[in-house]
Amino acid sequence: MDIREESLKKHYEWQGKIEVVSRCKIEDRRDLSLAYTPGVAQPCLEIQKSPDKSYELTRRSNLVAVITDGTAVLGLGDIGPEAGMPVMEGKCALFKEFADVDAFPLCIRSKDVDELVRTIYLISGSFGGINLEDISAPRCFEIEEKLKAICDIPVFHDDQHGTAIVVAAALINALRVVGKDIGRVRAVINGAGSAGIAIGRHLLQMGVNDLVMVDKQGILCEGDDSLNSAHADIAKTTNRGHMTGSLADAMRGADVFIGVSAPGVVSADMVRSMADGAIVFPMANPTPEIMPDEALAAGAAVVGTGRSDFPNQINNVLAFPGIFRGALECRARCINEEMKVATSYALAAMIPEGELRADNIIVSPLDKRVSRVVADAVIEAARKTGVARA
Amino acid sequence: MDIREESLKKHYEWQGKIEVVSRCKIEDRRDLSLAYTPGVAQPCLEIQKSPDKSYELTRRSNLVAVITDGTAVLGLGDIGPEAGMPVMEGKCALFKEFADVDAFPLCIRSKDVDELVRTIYLISGSFGGINLEDISAPRCFEIEEKLKAICDIPVFHDDQHGTAIVVAAALINALRVVGKDIGRVRAVINGAGSAGIAIGRHLLQMGVNDLVMVDKQGILCEGDDSLNSAHADIAKTTNRGHMTGSLADAMRGADVFIGVSAPGVVSADMVRSMADGAIVFPMANPTPEIMPDEALAAGAAVVGTGRSDFPNQINNVLAFPGIFRGALECRARCINEEMKVATSYALAAMIPEGELRADNIIVSPLDKRVSRVVADAVIEAARKTGVARA
Repeated sequence: MDIREESLKKHYEWQGKIEVVSRCKIEDRRDLSLAYTPGVAQPCLEIQKSPDKSYELTRRSNLVAVITDGTAVLGLGDIGPEAGMPVMEGKCALFKEFADVDAFPLCIRSKDVDELVRTIYLISGSFGGINLEDISAPRCFEIEEKLKAICDIPVFHDDQHGTAIVVAAALINALRVVGKDIGRVRAVINGAGSAGIAIGRHLLQMGVNDLVMVDKQGILCEGDDSLNSAHADIAKTTNRGHMTGSLADAMRGADVFIGVSAPGVVSADMVRSMADGAIVFPMANPTPEIMPDEALAAGAAVVGTGRSDFPNQINNVLAFPGIFRGALECRARCINEEMKVATSYALAAMIPEGELRADNIIVSPLDKRVSRVVADAVIEAARKTGVARA
Repeated sequence: MDIREESLKKHYEWQGKIEVVSRCKIEDRRDLSLAYTPGVAQPCLEIQKSPDKSYELTRRSNLVAVITDGTAVLGLGDIGPEAGMPVMEGKCALFKEFADVDAFPLCIRSKDVDELVRTIYLISGSFGGINLEDISAPRCFEIEEKLKAICDIPVFHDDQHGTAIVVAAALINALRVVGKDIGRVRAVINGAGSAGIAIGRHLLQMGVNDLVMVDKQGILCEGDDSLNSAHADIAKTTNRGHMTGSLADAMRGADVFIGVSAPGVVSADMVRSMADGAIVFPMANPTPEIMPDEALAAGAAVVGTGRSDFPNQINNVLAFPGIFRGALECRARCINEEMKVATSYALAAMIPEGELRADNIIVSPLDKRVSRVVADAVIEAARKTGVARA
């Protein structure tokens, strides 16, 4: 059976991929008096006195909201808030399975940036963190920025940062395989949506100096009046040589290609035109920009995709469970750049020197050791940068 | 140890009274592809085509939000949204333990009626029902009315209706004990907050014809310009004799007293002034308007309180789990008056004729048969009134 048809059948069987259970048994009158009235008045009063006690006396300390407006669900586009919920529930199931984080899915019936921000802010006291998901660009940038400015809990748009962090981890190891220095490579990112722009920003943080962003209209270049605000913004810190032209132009002589764009847009000739020891991450899902065997045949040294049926799967499930696990444990007030960079390095370091090969640059998304390793790196970075509150 | 101190200790141990768990195991790549990408695209597309499928393909069909703004938490007043969360979590635990309903607690950081309504509406697509909780009067009436007008899922303010439904159930059986007809009694309700007004409205629905509402300022009487809007409203359909005066005046000759007010405000003399076969429900918590032994000594025939340490505990845990169980199962678009009245009669009928006594008018809140009985009554009433969608 086709994977999507089987998934549909499974969804009918599951009747929801998450469930809310009770952590306290209620068998007799005393149980009732302790979990509910009149006993429950006491924890309420403690929190009224010291609001931070909500992290000790309610589930908040382990609880993340997974929130969408349904405007950019998977590659399906704007399918509406309710239709996005199977993805949100899936994400919540992964949070629990991979990092024992309680995550709860919410969809919001609005596309207005300020209304979304206000709604999420108003319910944020119920959670220890906010994971934004499947919100269309460039709205997602503004929504995340505004929320980060007003919320005292971590706000993290996983489509941006989760992807960026894992791409960077794979890139660190791919560079080790080909023996190149991150500060001296030329990298090209095709697809300047939320993931592409976030990958670009993160690579700049990681020390990439020569980065060219490309979108449907071609290379993004500072000064081009036709760029939208997000594109104009990233063009200010990338493409310092002010190159113009097509994706093929950008790829000529490049060391690294990262695709978060569309199936088949990269040809074998384009890969052939890259520098020796080329690193090619065609991550369009489910069909990559170029198939791995074609890219390898055209001379790519290392290839990674988003797919589980090829080597080197670049999957953001490697990042978000452990990042929130760490942020919650140290009660971080945000997830900052240092915590994201630390996650990339921690993930990369999970492949020991002796096992590092062109077809083994990134740990398996199913490896359940990952979230603990990531969480520890996140906690260390949070403490170093002074954003940990516990 | 004092119950409140022990409860606090338990809350530190529990670290939250609810937990979100996964209903699908994720052990291998295939599991990941089915629960998440790429398989999950298919249930998303099904819901996009037919939004009602969200009830089959996500947890929505069994999921209720328990929502507060923290303005009227227990008897503690306006302690703030986060401080209300131990109560919300307790309620969620009861939903699960008593009716296998998944319930999730949310607090909202706003006291503005329209903002609360808008926020709840915007997230309502994530749930199958909304249980409002601990919202101050008279705002709670407006919030519930506005939400009912715009939401296509049941909205139920438990402090109003849950209490009213269980009081009415107890009253039905108390009237059987004293051999009086509900249409011919004079009833007095002291305390015209959210619970008191809802009890009043519900008793009118149940056939009480002579009802007098009393609040701190005395008997509520139509035409009194000093009444707030909620009081003026209930005064239009109660106290048809246009009685004025104090609680003592209202109680003289009355058949039924229901208190949702304050400790000790009813004297033995007031009970003595009631009609023969007086029914007295002093439900102020934790200290009733008059202690049961005093009321009985003063001639009350039947006494019920909110407390678990006296006979006849009138506790809304008897209503809300089964009401939502039933509403969810038949996918009711609302919880209407007929469904509430049916619940009162179903609860009353759980005490068989042979076991009915002055000290046994209402089933135990710990009796786990209750929610099924209530759910069946709710489903039947929903079908009869055409609000069931499944």
